Amino acid sequence: MSPDRQSLEPAAAIDAADPLAGFRDEFVHADDEPDLIYLDGNSLGRQSLRSAAAVVEALEVQWGRRLIRGWNEGWFELPRRVGDQIADLVGASPGEVVLADSTSVSLYKAALAALGARPGRTRILTDDLNFPSDVQVLRAVAAAAGPDHEVVVVGSDGVHGPIDAIRAELEADGGDRVALVSLSHVAYRSGWRWDLAEVTALSHGHGALMLWDLCHSVGAVPIDLTAAEADLAVGCTYKYMNGGPGSPAFLYASARLPELVNPVAGWYGSEDPMGFDFDAGRALGVDRFLTGTPPILSTVPVGPAVDLLLEAGMDRLHAKSVALTERFIALVDQWLVPLGFEVWTPRDPTQRGSHVSLRHPEARAVGQALIHEESVIPDFRPPNLLRFGFAPLYVRHTDVDEAVARTVRVVNGGGIDRWRDVAPVVP
Amino acid sequence: MSPDRQSLEPAAAIDAADPLAGFRDEFVHADDEPDLIYLDGNSLGRQSLRSAAAVVEALEVQWGRRLIRGWNEGWFELPRRVGDQIADLVGASPGEVVLADSTSVSLYKAALAALGARPGRTRILTDDLNFPSDVQVLRAVAAAAGPDHEVVVVGSDGVHGPIDAIRAELEADGGDRVALVSLSHVAYRSGWRWDLAEVTALSHGHGALMLWDLCHSVGAVPIDLTAAEADLAVGCTYKYMNGGPGSPAFLYASARLPELVNPVAGWYGSEDPMGFDFDAGRALGVDRFLTGTPPILSTVPVGPAVDLLLEAGMDRLHAKSVALTERFIALVDQWLVPLGFEVWTPRDPTQRGSHVSLRHPEARAVGQALIHEESVIPDFRPPNLLRFGFAPLYVRHTDVDEAVARTVRVVNGGGIDRWRDVAPVVP
Repeated sequence: MSPDRQSLEPAAAIDAADPLAGFRDEFVHADDEPDLIYLDGNSLGRQSLRSAAAVVEALEVQWGRRLIRGWNEGWFELPRRVGDQIADLVGASPGEVVLADSTSVSLYKAALAALGARPGRTRILTDDLNFPSDVQVLRAVAAAAGPDHEVVVVGSDGVHGPIDAIRAELEADGGDRVALVSLSHVAYRSGWRWDLAEVTALSHGHGALMLWDLCHSVGAVPIDLTAAEADLAVGCTYKYMNGGPGSPAFLYASARLPELVNPVAGWYGSEDPMGFDFDAGRALGVDRFLTGTPPILSTVPVGPAVDLLLEAGMDRLHAKSVALTERFIALVDQWLVPLGFEVWTPRDPTQRGSHVSLRHPEARAVGQALIHEESVIPDFRPPNLLRFGFAPLYVRHTDVDEAVARTVRVVNGGGIDRWRDVAPVVP
Repeated sequence: MSPDRQSLEPAAAIDAADPLAGFRDEFVHADDEPDLIYLDGNSLGRQSLRSAAAVVEALEVQWGRRLIRGWNEGWFELPRRVGDQIADLVGASPGEVVLADSTSVSLYKAALAALGARPGRTRILTDDLNFPSDVQVLRAVAAAAGPDHEVVVVGSDGVHGPIDAIRAELEADGGDRVALVSLSHVAYRSGWRWDLAEVTALSHGHGALMLWDLCHSVGAVPIDLTAAEADLAVGCTYKYMNGGPGSPAFLYASARLPELVNPVAGWYGSEDPMGFDFDAGRALGVDRFLTGTPPILSTVPVGPAVDLLLEAGMDRLHAKSVALTERFIALVDQWLVPLGFEVWTPRDPTQRGSHVSLRHPEARAVGQALIHEESVIPDFRPPNLLRFGFAPLYVRHTDVDEAVARTVRVVNGGGIDRWRDVAPVVP
């Protein structure tokens, strides 16, 4: 397989004209794996040189030399300062986004806060495209809210968001039972992307609050939380945002909703943490959703990584994401569908994020063979999906062609058999 | 002031014979501040060379080169593996300690789990020596548990743990109202240290569960949670444990109490995170208290830092801590009490941790002058306390003498005035 064997424009020519091409050089590319094609930036983004420098500075200068003084020299405000950068990225205002805790803990806080603002309503609505941890957390939230609360998980076809079923649940039993709708903006398996404004308006139309999980969309597609009139959102920073393994999640709470109360109130979100007052009130703005001391070394890489996204611009990044995924799907149709693969992601680019999932009965073994024999890293989601993530900051069109070519080679070469019993790369 | 002007054994001689002296060389000492005396290891511990190397390895090799494969090559098990090391340090068994989230979030989980195991009891008991975030979190827990729940904050004299008042509250109203007693093992202000076994037995005797906050004691005093029959404990890892700014807290849940349920259930604490099943059961052991993806770069330094404590041995570390604090108090009595300072820490070494607090009407200005004019770093706690922390892994007896001498110089030199309006170093 080579580009001139099909109708697409040569990948090298597109890459040469790519206005974002220079951003690839902002990232670490290990010289011991020059042929690595990394298509798992939707799970853990590459490391930018700027983020690496920031960690080294935090390690050697801030902690190593300045010690406790680091808290006065930038650490203390870090969750809020990086939050304001992320606000720029997701169409929020300063003071509406803060960085802290894991996505799951942040989701717990946001969802329980939402229930507190909708007394008398007992249902949390989500769908089966959502990430399992989200559903587990929402159930924990329902349990914390009381025995009458429940999570309703709407079924889908496995690829597309079940908008009609969600509307039906919002209208059910008089239309006033749902307190909160919580969905993943981009679904972790199929890559389905909801219309933020449409679903938010639907939820509001039935008196429910809306909580978005932006983990699989932030940094890959344009997001305007203000225009969508979103209430609450959380998102991780280690996928397309390139913040590093387990970097803290962000939490967005609309300034329109000062009545929302952080249910896990701790000192870091009090009005004067250094006053050491049991009875301190809560901080203003989204800062009130902070709880404990933030993990500084894991927080430090996030800011410089967000800078890169802001410099590239989400519109340009998204245009490249669409080009990469369109090209991948075209090549899959031509080369991989005949080998038993099925595109398990919406074909309409307005309905997907920046990863494409392929269904194949041997998906797990194909994935392992790609990693270990062909230096292509996708990831596997049971029982039968391979996800290929196209992070537009550093993935090239030539990578798309090469990934498909190597997948063809793996399958045709019969190398899959010996990878059937190898544990998949996580997560 | 010099050692031969009082009755103490010369500090240099003690340091020369100190069996732990070599551990000081395991830590970073910046060559641009050769005279720095760092007595704030009770807020943020120094950086060990091993921890620094671990962060660089995680940054350059694991994230930088191995990318997503890092999760298969050690990251995934890190919270549990480091937890098992900490278990060694606190007298727990493997599978009873896990590293995750901030202290405040961990406390929330542990306390709400405890309430779930004591239905019908509506009181959480603590004291006014406890850290403000703990009291704020316990109140949030009471609010989550229902409108009938409340936190009772027992008053103290500001220095000593109010054991009689706690007993009285346990016995009040029939003696069956308290679900949970939660205290700081060592108080952050006065340094008061509770007897773990005594207070735990007292709580159990009245049917209450016991939750210890070990933030200010772990790594400084011997802890045996098994012998104390403790139920639950949390502790931060960035003070005497030297895990780095905001490194994750640990959570201990006794294996005797499998009925305790993590109220913030997320994927990382499910029985098979990589199975991606909404309905997955919870993991066995303390792993069930995990929630979301852990902050890897902030977690990596903790393990090597715990190794240092284990190699030094808690008995030897504690003996040195007692020697350092006894010497400091003796010198304070001789040199600083005449200048208006008051020892605000128990004089019985079995009743304190490894920091000594001094009360002084100008405490804040004295602290700032020490930092900025004398390269001595204590910390300030409003309204009038200076805390001096003696981390036995790297503080010398000569540091004790020198810190007192410099404090005398600051006060007698009249340099305090210009520091009255400078913001204190936090936290």
